[in-house]
Amino acid sequence: MGKIKIINEKPVPNIPWQDKPSDCSDVVWRYENNPIIPRNATSSSNSIFNSAIVPYKDEFAGVFRCDDKSRKMQLHTGFSKDGMSWNIDSKPIQFHCDDKEIGRFVYGYDPRVVWIEDRYYVTWCNWYHGPTIGIGYTKDFKEYYQLENAFLPFNRNGVLFPRKIRDKYIMISRPSDNAHTPFGDIFYSESPDLEYWGNHRHMMGPVQDSWQSTKIGGGPVPIETSEGWLLIYHGVLTSCNGYVYSAGVALLDLDQPWKVIYRTRPYVLSPQKLYECVGDVPNVVFPCSTLCDTETGRLAIYYGAADTAVGLAFAKVDELIEFTKNNSLV
Amino acid sequence: MGKIKIINEKPVPNIPWQDKPSDCSDVVWRYENNPIIPRNATSSSNSIFNSAIVPYKDEFAGVFRCDDKSRKMQLHTGFSKDGMSWNIDSKPIQFHCDDKEIGRFVYGYDPRVVWIEDRYYVTWCNWYHGPTIGIGYTKDFKEYYQLENAFLPFNRNGVLFPRKIRDKYIMISRPSDNAHTPFGDIFYSESPDLEYWGNHRHMMGPVQDSWQSTKIGGGPVPIETSEGWLLIYHGVLTSCNGYVYSAGVALLDLDQPWKVIYRTRPYVLSPQKLYECVGDVPNVVFPCSTLCDTETGRLAIYYGAADTAVGLAFAKVDELIEFTKNNSLV
Amino acid sequence: MGKIKIINEKPVPNIPWQDKPSDCSDVVWRYENNPIIPRNATSSSNSIFNSAIVPYKDEFAGVFRCDDKSRKMQLHTGFSKDGMSWNIDSKPIQFHCDDKEIGRFVYGYDPRVVWIEDRYYVTWCNWYHGPTIGIGYTKDFKEYYQLENAFLPFNRNGVLFPRKIRDKYIMISRPSDNAHTPFGDIFYSESPDLEYWGNHRHMMGPVQDSWQSTKIGGGPVPIETSEGWLLIYHGVLTSCNGYVYSAGVALLDLDQPWKVIYRTRPYVLSPQKLYECVGDVPNVVFPCSTLCDTETGRLAIYYGAADTAVGLAFAKVDELIEFTKNNSLV
Amino acid sequence: MGKIKIINEKPVPNIPWQDKPSDCSDVVWRYENNPIIPRNATSSSNSIFNSAIVPYKDEFAGVFRCDDKSRKMQLHTGFSKDGMSWNIDSKPIQFHCDDKEIGRFVYGYDPRVVWIEDRYYVTWCNWYHGPTIGIGYTKDFKEYYQLENAFLPFNRNGVLFPRKIRDKYIMISRPSDNAHTPFGDIFYSESPDLEYWGNHRHMMGPVQDSWQSTKIGGGPVPIETSEGWLLIYHGVLTSCNGYVYSAGVALLDLDQPWKVIYRTRPYVLSPQKLYECVGDVPNVVFPCSTLCDTETGRLAIYYGAADTAVGLAFAKVDELIEFTKNNSLV
Amino acid sequence: MGKIKIINEKPVPNIPWQDKPSDCSDVVWRYENNPIIPRNATSSSNSIFNSAIVPYKDEFAGVFRCDDKSRKMQLHTGFSKDGMSWNIDSKPIQFHCDDKEIGRFVYGYDPRVVWIEDRYYVTWCNWYHGPTIGIGYTKDFKEYYQLENAFLPFNRNGVLFPRKIRDKYIMISRPSDNAHTPFGDIFYSESPDLEYWGNHRHMMGPVQDSWQSTKIGGGPVPIETSEGWLLIYHGVLTSCNGYVYSAGVALLDLDQPWKVIYRTRPYVLSPQKLYECVGDVPNVVFPCSTLCDTETGRLAIYYGAADTAVGLAFAKVDELIEFTKNNSLV
Amino acid sequence: MGKIKIINEKPVPNIPWQDKPSDCSDVVWRYENNPIIPRNATSSSNSIFNSAIVPYKDEFAGVFRCDDKSRKMQLHTGFSKDGMSWNIDSKPIQFHCDDKEIGRFVYGYDPRVVWIEDRYYVTWCNWYHGPTIGIGYTKDFKEYYQLENAFLPFNRNGVLFPRKIRDKYIMISRPSDNAHTPFGDIFYSESPDLEYWGNHRHMMGPVQDSWQSTKIGGGPVPIETSEGWLLIYHGVLTSCNGYVYSAGVALLDLDQPWKVIYRTRPYVLSPQKLYECVGDVPNVVFPCSTLCDTETGRLAIYYGAADTAVGLAFAKVDELIEFTKNNSLV
Repeated sequence: MGKIKIINEKPVPNIPWQDKPSDCSDVVWRYENNPIIPRNATSSSNSIFNSAIVPYKDEFAGVFRCDDKSRKMQLHTGFSKDGMSWNIDSKPIQFHCDDKEIGRFVYGYDPRVVWIEDRYYVTWCNWYHGPTIGIGYTKDFKEYYQLENAFLPFNRNGVLFPRKIRDKYIMISRPSDNAHTPFGDIFYSESPDLEYWGNHRHMMGPVQDSWQSTKIGGGPVPIETSEGWLLIYHGVLTSCNGYVYSAGVALLDLDQPWKVIYRTRPYVLSPQKLYECVGDVPNVVFPCSTLCDTETGRLAIYYGAADTAVGLAFAKVDELIEFTKNNSLV
Repeated sequence: MGKIKIINEKPVPNIPWQDKPSDCSDVVWRYENNPIIPRNATSSSNSIFNSAIVPYKDEFAGVFRCDDKSRKMQLHTGFSKDGMSWNIDSKPIQFHCDDKEIGRFVYGYDPRVVWIEDRYYVTWCNWYHGPTIGIGYTKDFKEYYQLENAFLPFNRNGVLFPRKIRDKYIMISRPSDNAHTPFGDIFYSESPDLEYWGNHRHMMGPVQDSWQSTKIGGGPVPIETSEGWLLIYHGVLTSCNGYVYSAGVALLDLDQPWKVIYRTRPYVLSPQKLYECVGDVPNVVFPCSTLCDTETGRLAIYYGAADTAVGLAFAKVDELIEFTKNNSLV
Repeated sequence: MGKIKIINEKPVPNIPWQDKPSDCSDVVWRYENNPIIPRNATSSSNSIFNSAIVPYKDEFAGVFRCDDKSRKMQLHTGFSKDGMSWNIDSKPIQFHCDDKEIGRFVYGYDPRVVWIEDRYYVTWCNWYHGPTIGIGYTKDFKEYYQLENAFLPFNRNGVLFPRKIRDKYIMISRPSDNAHTPFGDIFYSESPDLEYWGNHRHMMGPVQDSWQSTKIGGGPVPIETSEGWLLIYHGVLTSCNGYVYSAGVALLDLDQPWKVIYRTRPYVLSPQKLYECVGDVPNVVFPCSTLCDTETGRLAIYYGAADTAVGLAFAKVDELIEFTKNNSLV
Repeated sequence: MGKIKIINEKPVPNIPWQDKPSDCSDVVWRYENNPIIPRNATSSSNSIFNSAIVPYKDEFAGVFRCDDKSRKMQLHTGFSKDGMSWNIDSKPIQFHCDDKEIGRFVYGYDPRVVWIEDRYYVTWCNWYHGPTIGIGYTKDFKEYYQLENAFLPFNRNGVLFPRKIRDKYIMISRPSDNAHTPFGDIFYSESPDLEYWGNHRHMMGPVQDSWQSTKIGGGPVPIETSEGWLLIYHGVLTSCNGYVYSAGVALLDLDQPWKVIYRTRPYVLSPQKLYECVGDVPNVVFPCSTLCDTETGRLAIYYGAADTAVGLAFAKVDELIEFTKNNSLV
Repeated sequence: MGKIKIINEKPVPNIPWQDKPSDCSDVVWRYENNPIIPRNATSSSNSIFNSAIVPYKDEFAGVFRCDDKSRKMQLHTGFSKDGMSWNIDSKPIQFHCDDKEIGRFVYGYDPRVVWIEDRYYVTWCNWYHGPTIGIGYTKDFKEYYQLENAFLPFNRNGVLFPRKIRDKYIMISRPSDNAHTPFGDIFYSESPDLEYWGNHRHMMGPVQDSWQSTKIGGGPVPIETSEGWLLIYHGVLTSCNGYVYSAGVALLDLDQPWKVIYRTRPYVLSPQKLYECVGDVPNVVFPCSTLCDTETGRLAIYYGAADTAVGLAFAKVDELIEFTKNNSLV
Repeated sequence: MGKIKIINEKPVPNIPWQDKPSDCSDVVWRYENNPIIPRNATSSSNSIFNSAIVPYKDEFAGVFRCDDKSRKMQLHTGFSKDGMSWNIDSKPIQFHCDDKEIGRFVYGYDPRVVWIEDRYYVTWCNWYHGPTIGIGYTKDFKEYYQLENAFLPFNRNGVLFPRKIRDKYIMISRPSDNAHTPFGDIFYSESPDLEYWGNHRHMMGPVQDSWQSTKIGGGPVPIETSEGWLLIYHGVLTSCNGYVYSAGVALLDLDQPWKVIYRTRPYVLSPQKLYECVGDVPNVVFPCSTLCDTETGRLAIYYGAADTAVGLAFAKVDELIEFTKNNSLV
């Protein structure tokens, strides 16, 4: 890893991994047996995709987006020994919630999971008279507790930072509209208590004539490094036949993360494999979580493929940061 | 078949069939050699898909949607001994029609065929200053006679019931607009003579946040059973990359078929195979006809795949009815 | 009136009338005290406009479109001695209806009234899971009886002819979609009994680069003359700031009214007065009824102005027919 | 005022007032010399409309939306002795702001002003990478101080309640998109400090087939009464020629204001006068502030007319509440 | 006129004129008897608006946009002694044209007329499989000759400069699409012979959040001055109820006119009078020609009002240039 | 080749070729090892598709559309010995250009290359404040020189004819708008010098209810034959899931090429193979160049597949002409 240091993450010695193929010159490469989770991995699922994996008790746990065969979007728990082979609960997560109005679960999707201090926080796109950001937590991936929604509708892709900054929780999100929003920037917000949010700052927006020209949104939980917060995010281009979702990388200021230091002009992953180009929504790669082994700098990136299945890709943190610096828009 | 009885259908002992794979838990399963009719099955065809098959003289006959290489939509006759291997006439059907204004055939598509009393009636989406419901009949799949259009434009998916009710012919249809209509409910209409239509009743509409959230329309001719009319229908969801066509099932009141008794919350078939997800219109399964063997309750479902080819799927009537009751929205 | 004869209409000696101003060269001219019915003519009304007036017992009666202050669209009865000063019932018409499903009155608008044989028939745009054509009748403008809807949704501007042709009732209508339809042709339909409808024929459509380029629809009940059915109809042009509704005239074949013999290239009335250009919907003139005095050929045209108030205009039948022949598109 | 009490407001003995005309049966009536502020009341103004007036030192002060002749939207201070004749500063308000990023004033519009505890708070639609809710305060209508924006974009019509509830500031707002939003509900939010906001609750949404069918949003600062919070709000209907903005009234639960107790089915004010129907945006009435005299229950309602000028209307609080109860949707 | 000089224009001593009202602080003011030409100034006209006036034989001549009552757009000749009272030919201009394909006149609108060297050139928006720029000339306003269209469709607002630059004819235009184009910049083109065009340069585009945010286009023929070419142009803002057309001013480099030296941030004329806000297209002022008296610097601006009538406004060249410099965006 | 003669082309004895499969009845057939150039043929490329190949020094050279991984569209040079295996320069072409304003290369795509007289001309879709037609030339595929853009924006698919007619250069193009244009006809233009263009003529437009119903545009450089100019062009159909690009053939008058003599009703190539149906833009075949061997009449057609890779197809000129005559719309 040379001079680049990963901060506050723990070693994940059993991180799923496959070395880069010798003929590959890309900074991110795919697992050869993708997709690792097929659409029908539970009996009721139509599709399993944009999902959040974390290390859990020397193994792995996750919160999965499982759309059932009525196409209702719900969250399910899953466990894995190796991060590749997953056992996903066929029943959706039921959150405990003090407030009936908030706890009524109409639909939820695109979860992220992050360990902060003493528990795993889950954020997801939660319907409350429109899509907004739901927040909950679990300590054991059995019992889940739902808190107040972070924001007013309409919002998506709420991602918590893994630690407080200046004693505030940090969330990035992508304000949107009530449908297939044709615009979208990433904003930064702070909260003293995960209940009240403010100090909103604009982080970054789309880039004309590029893979990220229509909208962008946060992906996995950012990784703190000596070079800044490493943020993998998705960007959308609108072709004459619809949206194309790719992924890029940004480095954010450590103390003022709404300030973007570097940002990749090229994508680092785009839909090119059959399982990414064909499915319920063609041409989508959508990273929602990473595992990061501090010892080796290995990074395992879990991403939704074609809104249908879960794919796995790999990178090395130092290479990704170098690539970002050397191919930056900013 | 237990206590469920199929009414007024005849045995089809040579119904095409393949048992459900042992690892399949779905109520509808695909034929393993799908698609049974490829896009180029006639020399002039660009694609052959949403089509209507019936038993005919101990074998099978059908009216097929064949779009030619100018992409003109037309109807063609086909015959088959086994219901799987088809010989399709390369020339389109020419209807005899007393009225020039009505008989001018600009385009026609998505046929259904039903035996009522003494002949086979064909209904299809027929252009007459917009899409509406054409009606014709044949006794021999050689000579076809065209009647007046059932309705004013704009309409699609007109499906006749296989017998009169209270001495009236029954048709369901899906009123639409003049393009890729983003809405659509199923309505019920009656006629004393197949010429004048009235007593229109609303049957059912789309369901929010589901596979059938944009529009729905009738599929194959309904099957009369002791539990009600068994209706397979299609539903459409609008993703950010376009429409996704799946299929579900409803049970209708025998005497007042506009009353829906049960209706599946999940789909029973959705586009998942490559030939359903890739083609002239990606992500379409569109059932237009069934064969039903009263002795065994076997059901063979013919459906258009990706607006390109014809697929075949199977179910058992009693299982399908049980599934519908146990997974109902209503 | 020279050689042109008005057929089957009766004298209306007390027809409201004002001679054409000497400086007016138009074939249709306005009443100088327009609007004759202001938006607030009843205590609950937001607006009173597209409405249907008929001679009744030597005076006049009418069915009025009154949108109330919740902007609910309803039908109201009105009476007048002189056709200019109206007394409109502040309570909406309640139809008697045998069928609850049909009789549930969600909203209704743009009525037409026509005497056929023994009663006054009312047609209007009636919501039944979308706009369609409602039919009812009254003999005394006190008790109203609702029949089955003529057509499936989506339809508007259903206008009955004042007599049967070949023993069939005749209706023209304008099939549409579920919103502010940006297309629309006039179609012709027949019914043996006002319950079942068929033999639909295309009558005429929009005309490119003209006042009638977006859509057209029937206006008042056609008037039978020796030269053909005289049909006043509306046409819509789409400017960069919305729809503009004007009115034109067509002459239809007496026996096969779907055949258009003449049709005005220019409009005969367009929104030019302040009360036509300013209101709930700017730039609308929308004729819904006429009075015609057979003795003098005088024609009084009632039209909605800006979807807000009722205006009155005048013409002479023979002049209108001559104008139509001399300025015809066909 | 009978049994209805106005709480926490102060007498405004010099409230602008004109008695209801004897021939008027409406619950809200207009000032006969409307508009009180013309579009060119300052030398640089293109238009002056949706504006916020409050009692100030026995006279009146206000924050005005003044769009200049480049059509830039800005806020200006104005003073008046009688609430009718206004002296508006030709220079826009310059807020003091600690944070450059927030204090950069790109545009601001549709202000509301409310006295809470010790100062006048101003909220407005403030551009920060999209429209959101700006918050500032003044003590003298000379020096203004800007705080953090309340919410993420995209939001409009943020209205503060005049007192804390359960020790929290209360704001209602209308989440929107980045353009002429075709949807919109009113939401409720709380804050301990006007910096962090949460506990968002849905208050109410549009009503199909009505004057408020497209979207609704808060109007003037709610008035606390013994019957609940009296909220005047705007609602929008979409005609074929664009939006029509009217105003209605709701009564909200005193302790849980997101609970709507009553809500008018009819509007109480709609665009009918020439200065409301003609201007930069035709067909708009948009109330942004009221004066309320507790002694008499007199209410003076200031509203934007056609996005061009300021109109004044009157009502009596007890009559308005009775009307709301007697004409309620809920 | 001080130090500002008007170049190459001639005195127009009988220029229509009215001094600025003493209470007017605007740089452009309206004629008090506007509109000078009403919509029905010819017997067949629906409207007469965006039109081109020039000095002609000590009096005035013009080419007028007259939409007839079928709403067909055509060009008509008019003459006037005083520039205010016009006699417009009721028959449209018929161009002589060598090429049938080009000379077929489907529709034409928004003419400009300019004297270059030895004749009056007319340019207009001319349909040739879409709107493009037609060119013709006349020497006597009786016989008109049509040349080749300048550009491929889709284009509008083609305006010739009054002299060649570097031996090339100069035209500005606004490339568009085939409908109510929601975008539009002004481009500059050159031609050696008025037949072949090239060396296209971008001149200027819309300005965000302003009266000219949607599109802009050239207005009257530019006036050569010692400070640069004085260009009056129109700009469009899109409100929720449609387009609003205002007018602004730019100063262009004399030798490289695609270089904009100054450009007004505010408009100099916007739709505020009833005849500008109400008509076939509400909220339009659209200048198409000016008269300029070199002796006095008086400027008479002819503009279309609400796409219905012709208005007249006045300015002084030196004041307009000063205003442009002092209120410039650039 | 019988009586059909290819004019002014030279033999290409080493033309890439594969005989038509015995079971193929189509007039155009694909190379069995398609795609010949994969998306990642250069290290920086996201995709390589719509490209222009010509014979060069007994081998082959080409200008390739290479979108890089930021999805920036650029032009690259490539060389090949056999026309199948290509070596593409990883650096984009840098044009020499005298004018900075014109030479600034924002993006360029869909090149065509044609030999005229003494050099290879390159035309492409070139951004200059919108897409328009860029023109350049090279003599050696090393040094490239950029000329003035041919037209004003918005334009695409500019294709030069391989010789002058009546001493004028000829270009066809497809005027469009600034996005995914939903309309488009082919127009013809002339130039004396490649700098100034005029004499624009309409050549042909879309055909309703066909594979070419939305828009059409020129493909490879036309081939001069004794039967007329042989033009392969693309056409677009809009399905409910987006555009489908196919290819057809027209024969144009030799002297007046805007006159279409024959034009295929059916397409000759449509997206049917996986590499044509799946990729960055599903369902696209887009021919941009051909090689033609005059001796044998062999034709090699290079086409973009799914906006992702380059495919190769074959035909014989005489068969293609016969097919066009026998299956013509005209």
